[in-house]
Amino acid sequence: MKSDKDLKQRSIALHRKLKGKISVQPKSQIKTIQDLSLFYTPGVGAVSAHIAKKPSSARELTIQNNTVAVVSDGSAVLGLGNIGPEAALPVMEGKAMLFKTFADIDAFPIVLATQDTEEIIKTVKNIAPTFGGINLEDISAPRCFEIEERLKKELSIPVMHDDQHGTAVVVLAGLINAFKVAKKSMMNSRVVVVGAGAAGTAVAKLLAQFGIADIVVLDSRGILSASRKDLNKYKKELVRLNKRKVVGGIEEALVDADAVIGVSGPKSISTRHIRLMADDPIVFALANPASEITPEDARLAGARIIATGRSDYPNQVNNSLVFPGIFRGALDGGVKSITDIMKVHAGEALAGAVKNPTVQKFIPGPFDRNIVKIVAKAVK
Amino acid sequence: MKSDKDLKQRSIALHRKLKGKISVQPKSQIKTIQDLSLFYTPGVGAVSAHIAKKPSSARELTIQNNTVAVVSDGSAVLGLGNIGPEAALPVMEGKAMLFKTFADIDAFPIVLATQDTEEIIKTVKNIAPTFGGINLEDISAPRCFEIEERLKKELSIPVMHDDQHGTAVVVLAGLINAFKVAKKSMMNSRVVVVGAGAAGTAVAKLLAQFGIADIVVLDSRGILSASRKDLNKYKKELVRLNKRKVVGGIEEALVDADAVIGVSGPKSISTRHIRLMADDPIVFALANPASEITPEDARLAGARIIATGRSDYPNQVNNSLVFPGIFRGALDGGVKSITDIMKVHAGEALAGAVKNPTVQKFIPGPFDRNIVKIVAKAVK
Repeated sequence: MKSDKDLKQRSIALHRKLKGKISVQPKSQIKTIQDLSLFYTPGVGAVSAHIAKKPSSARELTIQNNTVAVVSDGSAVLGLGNIGPEAALPVMEGKAMLFKTFADIDAFPIVLATQDTEEIIKTVKNIAPTFGGINLEDISAPRCFEIEERLKKELSIPVMHDDQHGTAVVVLAGLINAFKVAKKSMMNSRVVVVGAGAAGTAVAKLLAQFGIADIVVLDSRGILSASRKDLNKYKKELVRLNKRKVVGGIEEALVDADAVIGVSGPKSISTRHIRLMADDPIVFALANPASEITPEDARLAGARIIATGRSDYPNQVNNSLVFPGIFRGALDGGVKSITDIMKVHAGEALAGAVKNPTVQKFIPGPFDRNIVKIVAKAVK
Repeated sequence: MKSDKDLKQRSIALHRKLKGKISVQPKSQIKTIQDLSLFYTPGVGAVSAHIAKKPSSARELTIQNNTVAVVSDGSAVLGLGNIGPEAALPVMEGKAMLFKTFADIDAFPIVLATQDTEEIIKTVKNIAPTFGGINLEDISAPRCFEIEERLKKELSIPVMHDDQHGTAVVVLAGLINAFKVAKKSMMNSRVVVVGAGAAGTAVAKLLAQFGIADIVVLDSRGILSASRKDLNKYKKELVRLNKRKVVGGIEEALVDADAVIGVSGPKSISTRHIRLMADDPIVFALANPASEITPEDARLAGARIIATGRSDYPNQVNNSLVFPGIFRGALDGGVKSITDIMKVHAGEALAGAVKNPTVQKFIPGPFDRNIVKIVAKAVK
């Protein structure tokens, strides 16, 4: 606890010192009237006239093709919830740092003064011409689903809600390797997803897309099943993954399950729950910083293949393994939309980056070599 | 002409090589898990929580207080007209370079996929939380007036349409010194503004604010006067500056005028027109690259005190003398709105930067020392 408090104070002090974590830098110096006339007026007029005649040349002559907007309305930030745009800004700046550090992408934070679905869609569409891609971030469910779907449909540049798909791709990668460690078949397994928010929904869908036939998803009221009358359209879509038509709560869901993916909140899974699962159970407890069950408790209950959302345990499910490579690949390949197939390929490629998966390491670390390249190649 | 063509080709080649003129850079490196935990999760959560409790601390903990959006809809770009957002992007990138080079401000281009007044206003308001100021650029008149007015009213950060006020402040500075060179009283002078677009309107208003009592403004149909039935509300406001109620065209306007400010287009002023003016006429011919009258012709007609919009003649009216300092001063001073008084002060301060104005130099150059500091101090 002391070290947590230390980290918080050090982080605030560091942010205060830097006054923001990114800067906008000219790629060339302007020192003379001659420089001004080449980079600005009158020379730049020729560049503008060229693009006006041939709009596609903006890709080659402007920042557009290497620039991503990191867009958030601050409605679902980390474990903090709906804290608004200003408070979300440090997270988006951090994301921009990671884009540059890992993938040499120029990302810029855009935090929004609205949380209205239609206004967010319109605003992002209106500012899109500057950008080669849109990374949606920390927007609460279920609005995040409609916002992403609509923007994907209405824009011709890649749009990705990272809380959904970044997480889903790492979970897929981790699960592929976890099943290898367990020496079990993944396709015929039973997987339970605890949590039906942005991450849970995307995880369940991507695992289904990958080919897992039996996926039971729970929200805070229990298993998503046909008998539930309180489901929105996004949760209804997940009912069809529940092939055995299991009903009830987490206990009913976990009986004989091979893997459980916790993407909900602190302490929603107990040792008793883990003991209901099949032999050699796979436990991903991803809530952060307080997880659904601690790795220690999961181990006590008999699990040895464990992933968390934290950097201080082995096998961290960390989105920064994915979003830099996905956007790098999309920008380089001129990809107009990031498809489910690309995400599956990215997950497989990421899994392949760990040559000999073990209990100690079946998910790559964010500083492992070539992660971005591997993911980018899978997308291209 | 050959050198113009050369410049164009070199500018396009340079843009193609750089692939855009700005980049987004982390202010600190991320090399370890420890760095990640301080700049991103979990450490950044403490920073977000802090701002959520105390929103004003975003000024100290994020990029907000040193970041300006350069916003354009591409409707009135340089001499090119309505070329749209992608084609406007190189100009906005150039502007961002100048913001950094001259004032160490992190400016980011936002080019818009809409030219609808209400949508532009709403979009800029929605993205405002990232920024400490909004620089509007190359938006056509008369929409630019309403967009700026409304945003100034509805946002609590400085908003400035540079085509209007950047130009107006340099013209004011130049005119103060030009009258010194002419050894004439400026307050009792007759000034004619040829052009009633964004720049012309702002120039006329700022000169009136400064105290010049007799200002005649012309649009393409002639002098703005009470007898005109075709004036929009912005042009109607300029009629009251026409104290002698002069009617007619450019010839009627220029009889006995002390100074003429051309902010219209090529060849709208002839040697014959200049000869109608008072002794030692002051001629600012600011259209760019082809001016209202060439300096050579103006000289032939008897003018010796001449300014242009071009960098290859003495006394260039160049907005980059103004916008970096205005925003530097506004950000540093926590100024919520850039007022007419601040602009007058900026113009006076800029004029004062040329210690001994002469025919050869009565307007500072963009690389003169301390220009930004002088203007920033006047705003603060």
